[in-house]
Parts: sequence; structure tokens; C-alpha cells
Amino acid sequence: MWTAALFVFLLLNVEVNEAANTTTSKQETKENTEATDSVSASSSRFVGNLLVIPMDGSHWVGIKAIAQEMGRRGHRVTVVMPEVTSRMGPGKYYDTVTFPVPYDKAFVESVMATHKEIMKKSSQPFMEKIKSRITQIQSIVGMLHSTAESLLFNDSLIEHLALQDFDAVLTDPMVPTGSLIARKLGLPTVNLLRGIPCSLDMKSAGCPSPPSYVPRFFSGYTDKMDFKQRVINTLVAFLEPLLCRVIYWHFDQIAYQFLGEKVGVAEVLSDSDIWLMRFDFTLEFPRPLMPNMVLVGGINCNVRNPLPEVSSHGFVVFTFGSMVSELPRETAAVFLEAFRQIPQKVIWRYTGPLPDDIPENVKMMKWVPQNDLLAHPGARAFITHAGSHGIFEGLCHAVPMLMLPLNGDQPDNARRFASRGTGVVLDIFSITTEILLQGLNEVINNTRYRENLQRLSALHTDRPIDPLELSVYWTEFVMRHKGAKHLKAAVHDLNLIQYFCLDVIALLVTVVLVFLILTVKCFKMCFRKLGKKRKQD
Amino acid sequence: MWTAALFVFLLLNVEVNEAANTTTSKQETKENTEATDSVSASSSRFVGNLLVIPMDGSHWVGIKAIAQEMGRRGHRVTVVMPEVTSRMGPGKYYDTVTFPVPYDKAFVESVMATHKEIMKKSSQPFMEKIKSRITQIQSIVGMLHSTAESLLFNDSLIEHLALQDFDAVLTDPMVPTGSLIARKLGLPTVNLLRGIPCSLDMKSAGCPSPPSYVPRFFSGYTDKMDFKQRVINTLVAFLEPLLCRVIYWHFDQIAYQFLGEKVGVAEVLSDSDIWLMRFDFTLEFPRPLMPNMVLVGGINCNVRNPLPEVSSHGFVVFTFGSMVSELPRETAAVFLEAFRQIPQKVIWRYTGPLPDDIPENVKMMKWVPQNDLLAHPGARAFITHAGSHGIFEGLCHAVPMLMLPLNGDQPDNARRFASRGTGVVLDIFSITTEILLQGLNEVINNTRYRENLQRLSALHTDRPIDPLELSVYWTEFVMRHKGAKHLKAAVHDLNLIQYFCLDVIALLVTVVLVFLILTVKCFKMCFRKLGKKRKQD
Repeated sequence: MWTAALFVFLLLNVEVNEAANTTTSKQETKENTEATDSVSASSSRFVGNLLVIPMDGSHWVGIKAIAQEMGRRGHRVTVVMPEVTSRMGPGKYYDTVTFPVPYDKAFVESVMATHKEIMKKSSQPFMEKIKSRITQIQSIVGMLHSTAESLLFNDSLIEHLALQDFDAVLTDPMVPTGSLIARKLGLPTVNLLRGIPCSLDMKSAGCPSPPSYVPRFFSGYTDKMDFKQRVINTLVAFLEPLLCRVIYWHFDQIAYQFLGEKVGVAEVLSDSDIWLMRFDFTLEFPRPLMPNMVLVGGINCNVRNPLPEVSSHGFVVFTFGSMVSELPRETAAVFLEAFRQIPQKVIWRYTGPLPDDIPENVKMMKWVPQNDLLAHPGARAFITHAGSHGIFEGLCHAVPMLMLPLNGDQPDNARRFASRGTGVVLDIFSITTEILLQGLNEVINNTRYRENLQRLSALHTDRPIDPLELSVYWTEFVMRHKGAKHLKAAVHDLNLIQYFCLDVIALLVTVVLVFLILTVKCFKMCFRKLGKKRKQD
Repeated sequence: MWTAALFVFLLLNVEVNEAANTTTSKQETKENTEATDSVSASSSRFVGNLLVIPMDGSHWVGIKAIAQEMGRRGHRVTVVMPEVTSRMGPGKYYDTVTFPVPYDKAFVESVMATHKEIMKKSSQPFMEKIKSRITQIQSIVGMLHSTAESLLFNDSLIEHLALQDFDAVLTDPMVPTGSLIARKLGLPTVNLLRGIPCSLDMKSAGCPSPPSYVPRFFSGYTDKMDFKQRVINTLVAFLEPLLCRVIYWHFDQIAYQFLGEKVGVAEVLSDSDIWLMRFDFTLEFPRPLMPNMVLVGGINCNVRNPLPEVSSHGFVVFTFGSMVSELPRETAAVFLEAFRQIPQKVIWRYTGPLPDDIPENVKMMKWVPQNDLLAHPGARAFITHAGSHGIFEGLCHAVPMLMLPLNGDQPDNARRFASRGTGVVLDIFSITTEILLQGLNEVINNTRYRENLQRLSALHTDRPIDPLELSVYWTEFVMRHKGAKHLKAAVHDLNLIQYFCLDVIALLVTVVLVFLILTVKCFKMCFRKLGKKRKQD
């Protein structure tokens, strides 16, 4: 009924107007149709030009996945990397631009091998341990700074990049080289990260992190803290800005030199358009997020080459990630001795010289398809350093984990997962065959770990969009719309006093105090007068 | 290479173990396969049983869309509604259960018509206006309470519902009837809402809303506030809990009676598993969100019956939503006079008796396909009361808006959209033909409104998943997993002192003060001793 009435009405309109104004109205309609078309088409047919500035090591995994997928979808993708790298390299779907660095492959390998040194010296006195730990951190940080400077102050390369007409930069903000280049070239940024230890990511995104239930990195706390834990967590929260200043001190100087403007790393990162966060709430404790944060935990769980089904006692997958591929001889012996005593086969990623006494059920390999192995129904346990990629692969495929965290976010990852009953955490630095064996038997034979993991894995994998797909979507979004400014909160215009409304609270408290004082004075005066009057009476 | 090595290794394992333990291992593998299957299948083949407890009026639109879509996908959907309603009714894909209420259709219509009365009395003195406004609110609130009580204390119906083995409740928490029933029946809850004025939704979800950049409902502020605005916004934030107590006072009593436990509405709502929020950041100012909040603004923008293309001067769509379908005669005359002076046709949703002097270019209809009309390229302007459904339809289809907000969230919606240059806000209570005409000509002829809207619409419609699809996804998620507890922050275990760490801050301040006092005392003592010694010398 209404349709008929409406059509007659609208058509009548045409008859009246078309004679008078045919050209204009047709043109208008065409414009409208085009506009609508371009909007609806923008999401499907957009092809752009992406600059990728990754970090080396395990951080490369996620960035590479996005770069590959972006290239596969027809975007032009350019990955900038140093001539000497640990893991980075060319790929099928992206171009590579390299720049010279003042170190060689041997140096990179020696920096990576310091892990082994630290483990070896577990019997060292405490101060020696701390010293060698600091030396290790210094050597890694030195290499990161040197790499960043080699890129940022390579004028011809920066000029070359400036001419490429990129739509956006995809980078890992832990080392803010990419963010600095994005600011210099005026490009929007997409970040991929697990988190920055001093919460610089949350600070730069303007994301509230109430210390009452958001445990800080390294604290080892859960989201349920007692008073003492809250005191320490709050203290850490207070100290975080200072920690950030220390960690990014050198980069703040580099930023000034490179950009020629007085900005620090925190301010540069607050330019970021989209934060792709490599976690979700099966790992992390629920916390506030900002509109421009997208959770992509489990970005690396797609099974690429499914292994054929093998009925068996099952097997154990043992990898310590890309950073630790070799153990001190005495530690390796502890593991081998424990493996000798379990019925499962063990597949161990190990790049060092093979020991003489490898048990029959152990296979040591220079590289293993970790994710595909974990996806195999025969996988009974996963011995891992609890790096953020590994644990998500364990979680996706519900393989109980024996976690031996080394450093970085690993201890936190391990504790968080263990608190959900998905595995056991052991101390790699004081490991013995008995402890290891007990842990292995526990995660393999106690069904509660697999049950918990299956429940958690069901939650983790039940999502409207695959995390890699989602990462690509938001990268394309930023390229299409030249940023995502409408998702950025107005936090960045406020200083700390304004943000916490301390000035407002001060005013309100003053008003209340003045009011109280005046009231008391008034009452006093009245009583005095009354008293006087009574006396006079 | 590695594949070959690995396969040989794994197959060897089979040969060794299968002889000894065939049955067990086969069984184990089968279990594993089944587990993996059930996980991967859960997201695609799940069919459940959903209880829907909606609100009447415009709130029904979004809930109905989800209920229909859930039913269409094969879920059993039961919608509970009063026997007498304003807009609710049966649908193709859901069952309806009705309950008796102590009022009739005429009463509902009289409550709805109070809008008209208020507009008519625009020349009334201020106090009279306030009085009639309060009477209007009282009559609406009275009806809401009466409806809720009629359902909650209908023992046989509640018993019947308890026996239906529902997986979840989908409801509008503005009126917490559904949430109370969910708590009584121990069912997880999915909420669909635009927001609750006293921020009860944010409070119950444990979501931080810093008053420094999150403007409060009714304040009319943007996310960039000067000091005075921040003072008022902070005061409103302080008063919100009190406001909530007043608004939900009666429901707090009902909750106690119905549940038999001493809980208020705020606590009941904090049980909620998923909050489907009917906004996004093209409307709302960017603000923190919680993991269990899902943005579904624009859930109602799908074009169902595209209208044929009509070349013309275009037309103006004029609707004041379902709550206001008729205007006082003098206000209607103002509109008609203005429409007479524009070349566009006007399609006006109007249910009252038709005036005598309708201009030729105006078509008044009892019902119009608002969304389909706005999607038509001929739509030149949208005269709207800025209800949250209408403005999203205007936004989706990029139709410049002339906004005449009446009440509720409408003034805020209007100001937010206007601040983005998408339309003009006018005061319906003091409207004249000249003002209206000026506004109409502005939004129709000044291209900047359409340009802004096209940019904003491109951002709004560029999303990885359609909002209705997303709403259905998370409703199914809650049904599949019997809730979404892993997305709920640990805020609810904390009282306000703990949440803001006021106890921790008090301790830290005390420690610092004691330390300072002791230091000062120490110095004083030292100086005194030194002084004495010198004197002695």
C-alpha cells in the first residue's frame, strides 16, 4: 500500500521537475551514485602501497605474516631491513629494501648466544649473574640503537622512501624506528606488538590501566591482588614513566636529531592510528581498551602444512623460540635424561652441536614446523619458553604446556597461563631431571590441563574474524582513510593534572572548605550573639 | 627435508608403540580428534534457545532485528512482551509469549501523546512547562514499572520460562526486567542499548569514563572541554551514582522482592556478559571500552526493499520516530508553510488527522520505509528528532540532517553529529517557518554537509563485520559458552576505595610524611647537638 502511494508520489515528482531541470538532476544523481559506489567499493577493491619497518627476532613473525598477506592481496609492500639480520629475509609477496649496518652476522649470533651464557652460569654468585645480565641487555640494546641509527641517518634511503608515495607504515613500536619515519614522512601508522614493558604503549594510546586490577609487567600478579600487591603494583605504575624515560632515553635523543623537533618517543607513538595487540583475554586479564586497539592474539596459529595422522603414545614438542636455539651442555643433559624416562617421542628444535648420548625417542632438529606439530592430535605436551607466539600456538591447538620462561614477557605469559590451569611453570635456571620429569608427567597424564586448555582454546578460537584477517583489515583501513583519527581519544590534548581533573578536584575541595568554614563562622557568630543577648536579658 | 625426517621419526614411533598399546592410543587419538572437531564445529553448527525480553517503543527496533536474525538461523527464539504494546508484535522467526498488564491500548497511546501536549504548550510559563514535563515522565515511568511488575510477579509465567532450558537472555538493560529474570534463572545476558543516562551501563560494566574528556549525557559538551565545562562535567560524574539511585529506586525494591536477595539493579547489571552498544565513534567521542563491549551502531541500516531510481530535484524525508507521530496543529502549520517554499518533495510520517492545506509537494503517510527512503539517491535531507536509529540511518546513507531533538539522548546525538558538520540543530519548541526554511536550504544546498557525511559514512560503513551479524555472533557466543566470564574485568570485586587505590595512596602519603617528619626531626636534633657542642667548646 505505502509502496504504491510512494512510487506514484515520487514519479509525479519526476514528471513535474524533469522537464525543467533534466541535466542538473541527472548529473546530481550520477554524482550521488558514484559517491555511494566509491564508498561501498572502497572496502573491497582498494589497492595501496605499504611501508613495513619490522623488528628482528621473534617480533618478525607477526609482521611478516601481515606483510605477506597484504602482498598476496595485491598491495605493494616494501619491507625495510638491515643487511645483516637474525631471522628477517625476503618473501614471496613483498619487496625488500636493505640498508648497511656496522656489524656482521657473527656479532648478531654472539648477541643471541648470551642467553646460553646466562643459563650456563647459574652457579655464579648473584652479583656476577646480575652483571652478565646487564652486559647481555647492553649488547642487545646497543645493536638495536645501532640498527635504528643506520636506517634513520641513511639520508639517501630516507629520501628514497619519501618518494615512494606510501599510504601507511606497519611497524613494531617496541623499537620506534618505524614510528619516527612515519612522522617524518607524514604517514599514518599501524603498530603490531605484544606490549611494551613500561606500558609506553598504553600511555601513548591514552588507555587507562587502573593499578587496582591491571597487574604490571614483571609483577607476576593476577587481576586479583591483596593490599600488599596493590601497593607494589601502584608503586610500579607510579615508576613506569621514569622507567620509560630510562629505556627510551637514547631514542628520545635520536628522535630529536632525526625529526628536528623537540618530541620524545612517547609523543611520536601517540600519533599511531591503530594498535594491533598480540593478546586476547584468554591470556591477558580483562582490562580497559581504547577504540583504536584491535586484539589479534593468535595471529600465528593458522596451520599451513597439516601433518598426516599418526597413532601413537604421542609426542612432545620442545622449542625455546628463535632466540634460544642451544642450551649449555649440563642443562641439555638434564633434559635428555628426563626424556629418556618418558614413553613419548620428543621433537626438539636445537641448532647447537648434537650431544653424543641422544636417547632413541628424541629427535633434535635445526628447525621444526612448531605450529603444524602442535596442531597434530599426537602432540601431548609443549615444552616452551612461553614466548607470546608459542603460547598462543599451544593454546590454539590445546596442547598442555611445560613453561620455562627466560626473560621479557615470558615469565608473565607463563604465570598468566598457568593461573588458568593450562600448564606448569618451572625455573630453567635451577632445573633438575627429577623436577622436569615430574612436570612432564603432570602435564601429559593429568587430564585437567588438556580439559582447561580445550575450554580456553574454544573461547580463544571462537571469534568473528581470524586475527590475521583482522590485522590486514585494519591495515587496509588506515591506508584507505589515510589514518583513523576518529578513533583517537582526546586524551592527548590533556596534561596529567587535567586528565585526572586534579585542578577541578582542588577547586571543588576549596569551595567545600570555604563553605564549611563560613558556615562554622556563621554559627559561631550566631551563638555568640545569642549568648550575649541572653546575658543582656 | 625436515618433513621427511619428521615423518620417518613419527612413523617409527607408531611401529614401536602400536603393538603394545593399540587400543589405548587409538582411543586417545579419537578423543583428541573429537575434541578438536567439537571446538571447530561449535562456531558453525550451534543451535540454541534464546529468551528475549525487549523494551517497547523505538528500543524494540534493534532487539527485533537480532531476534529475527537469530530465528532465521535456526535458533529457537522466544520473545516475552505485554499483551498491550505500542510497537512490539509477533514476527516470522520468533515465538511470542504475552502477559497481561493493568492498562489498555488507549492508555499507552495517551502516554505517547504527551509529547504533543508538551510541544503545544510552548507558550506556557516555565514552571507549568516543568510540571507537565514531570507529569509526562511520571506517566512513562509508571507504565514501565507496571509492565515490569506484571511480568516479574506473574509466577506461572516465570515458572514456565524457568522450564524452557534457555541458553541466554537478550534484553535492553535500560529497563532491567530481563536482567532480573536472567539472574533468577541463572542465565547469561546479552544487552543491547544506546546507553543509560546516569552511566549505569558504564558503571556496571566497570568501564572507566574519565570526566576530563568523556562528556556526560545531557551536558552537551564535546570531548574537548574548557575548565568550566570540566568542572561541571566532573560534578555531574560525581552526582551520577545519586541520579542512578533515584532513577532505579523503584527497580531496586522490585529486585529485592523478585530475587529475594539484597541486590540493587547496578549489581544485577554487572552480571551481564556482553554489552552490544548501539553507537560507534563517528557519533560518540572516542572513550575507553571494556573487553565485553561490542559496538554495533548502525545495526538498522540494511536496505531491505531498495526503491527504484527516480531522477528529480530529490526529496526530503521527515519523521519524528515512532514516539512522536503527530504534531500540535500550530507546529504542523509552521512545517507545511516552509515545505511549500522548497522545490523538493517532502515525505512526512504523520499519523494524526491530516490538515486541510497540505501543499502539493508534501505527502503525509502513516508509515514510511525510512531507511529505504534515505538509501535512495534522491534523498536530499532528513528532518529528524535525532533518535539513535534515525541518525545512524542518515549517516549510513549520507543524507544531511535537520535535527530537532525532543528528549532522551536526542539533544546529545544531535549536538554530536552537528559538531562533525553533518547537519543543523534547531529548537522544535521555538521553531518558525523562517528558521526552518533557512535550516532546510542550508542542509540541502550547502554541499559541505553531504561531503562531511560521505567522509563520515565511509568510516562508519567500513567495518570488518556488519553490526547485525556481529550482534548475532556475540549472542551465539554467549549461548555456546554459557556466558563470557573471561571478558569481565575484576573490577566488580573491588569497592570504590580499592578501585581508585585510595587506601594505597593514603598509605604511601603517610609513609612519605612520616619519612619527611623523621628526617626533619633528625636534622633538628643534629643541629641542636652541634649547637650545644659548639657552645660547650
